[in-house]
Amino acid sequence: MENLHSLYYFLELAGTFAFAISGATAARQRNLDLFGICALAYVVACGGGIIRDLCIGAIPPAGLSNWHYLVVAIIATGLTVGFFSVVQRLNRPVLLFDALGLSLFAVTGAQKALSYGHNGQVAVLLGIATAVGGGVVRDIMLNRVPVILQKEIYASAALIGAVIVVLGDYLKWVSDGWVAIIALTISFTLRVLALRYHWNLPVPSNATTRLNK
Amino acid sequence: MENLHSLYYFLELAGTFAFAISGATAARQRNLDLFGICALAYVVACGGGIIRDLCIGAIPPAGLSNWHYLVVAIIATGLTVGFFSVVQRLNRPVLLFDALGLSLFAVTGAQKALSYGHNGQVAVLLGIATAVGGGVVRDIMLNRVPVILQKEIYASAALIGAVIVVLGDYLKWVSDGWVAIIALTISFTLRVLALRYHWNLPVPSNATTRLNK
Amino acid sequence: MENLHSLYYFLELAGTFAFAISGATAARQRNLDLFGICALAYVVACGGGIIRDLCIGAIPPAGLSNWHYLVVAIIATGLTVGFFSVVQRLNRPVLLFDALGLSLFAVTGAQKALSYGHNGQVAVLLGIATAVGGGVVRDIMLNRVPVILQKEIYASAALIGAVIVVLGDYLKWVSDGWVAIIALTISFTLRVLALRYHWNLPVPSNATTRLNK
Repeated sequence: MENLHSLYYFLELAGTFAFAISGATAARQRNLDLFGICALAYVVACGGGIIRDLCIGAIPPAGLSNWHYLVVAIIATGLTVGFFSVVQRLNRPVLLFDALGLSLFAVTGAQKALSYGHNGQVAVLLGIATAVGGGVVRDIMLNRVPVILQKEIYASAALIGAVIVVLGDYLKWVSDGWVAIIALTISFTLRVLALRYHWNLPVPSNATTRLNK
Repeated sequence: MENLHSLYYFLELAGTFAFAISGATAARQRNLDLFGICALAYVVACGGGIIRDLCIGAIPPAGLSNWHYLVVAIIATGLTVGFFSVVQRLNRPVLLFDALGLSLFAVTGAQKALSYGHNGQVAVLLGIATAVGGGVVRDIMLNRVPVILQKEIYASAALIGAVIVVLGDYLKWVSDGWVAIIALTISFTLRVLALRYHWNLPVPSNATTRLNK
Repeated sequence: MENLHSLYYFLELAGTFAFAISGATAARQRNLDLFGICALAYVVACGGGIIRDLCIGAIPPAGLSNWHYLVVAIIATGLTVGFFSVVQRLNRPVLLFDALGLSLFAVTGAQKALSYGHNGQVAVLLGIATAVGGGVVRDIMLNRVPVILQKEIYASAALIGAVIVVLGDYLKWVSDGWVAIIALTISFTLRVLALRYHWNLPVPSNATTRLNK
């Protein structure tokens, strides 16, 4: 049990790190100053989790009271700024780290809602909110079209991760640790493949086509 | 009493349905995919109520934990997508359903705040927040100028609906059911007439005019 | 102790007044109607404090339940609209009142988080959130680039004010009243000087420069 708690905590910090790099990179590309980069990295990394904690009644939100999250965001900012030429050489680094944070937070967000005694629907919805919240805030702050409204499968990947966690909790076929790893792998793989091959959900289009003729 | 609770609950679901159609229509016009349409419909329908529930201490927010809201949002999305040519033939359908949701949520939002023991000011402010919250989120997500900042009377209609609910609760001249129906009718009529005849609140204009000369 | 509480309460209302003028001026420049100006003034003045209160578990948020805040926002709106030609003659009035509100809210926000028994990190982060929250909401609503992302030192001034409050609370070298006054003076002075002389935090620039060549 202690081990499982540690696993989820590690995954949460890993998600924080991934989203912080994504936020810092986006801020760096917009030429924000050092404090602005750090602030945006922190908001992207902890914004979704703070919304989740407010909704499940975890006051004060862990992202505010636990210094681990803040330090992870600062380290991620330092690495992004210090090795920016390396980060830039990565292929679409914002999207890649964003995908990693997305899967990690969908899984840990759903698990935390369950651990506070809420039902499966709350867990799934807050898993998604934790996963996409930070990125939406980042994009609104930077006046970009939110990634979540782009065509490639995005929130759906978070949905699937969160659903697997809830199903795993109900069915108890395998240990919670394995559920987390399975949910994480499927969710991340789905998002990366969707990015790579431009997988999209169907867009209902007949009426629009008719209008455009 | 049980009947009254049922009435408010029905109005709340009706408001959810109206706002979900408004959100789904806006998302559909922007060519989002099916999941995106559903997500935006849900956020518009439940966003304001979730903010209200956080502020009155109703944890977890009903929009997250009660499956009725989610199912209503999904049905509204299905209808909007399935019968989009019908929806489009309606005159300004987003604005019309938006007006209906606005009035319904102003009334139920104020009533729920009162039922949690908060004062009249909290009830009025959260009635307005419930009513306009979802629409503001929708417009920010879609990079549109928020309807609330357009000229026709909008938030004022929600204000009047919420004020009538609070006055009705204090004066107790008629039953709470009648108060809800009166508040709803006045608020909705006001918004629709404002849309139809372009009623506006006064815009202070002398200084600007002087500047423009 | 009663005196100290009164001091912080007065500072909080002063910050509300300053931010409400800043919000009303911005809304007035965009030609919003009277209700829209008042609503934006209120949101800018109370938005950050409501976020803070949700995070520290102060339900309902003071900005909603205490009529003082609402009345101060309405008075500030009336003054801004009535004496708009005077307000406009001030040099960059939105930025100036914004700077005053920023310092006041950083100090009172941090102090309120401490008084609810939260740790120093929560106090600093929520001091910043209280200070910058309303302004960010204002700028997003009006589709402006958030002031916080502009180059001159902004959130850093709030950070320093909040840090001084937390340090003062730990070290107890001087009374809390003096701590508040010192924190306020340093934070406000820093922000105004940064505006006047265009002080900026360093922007990491080598990689970008290389790309632009």
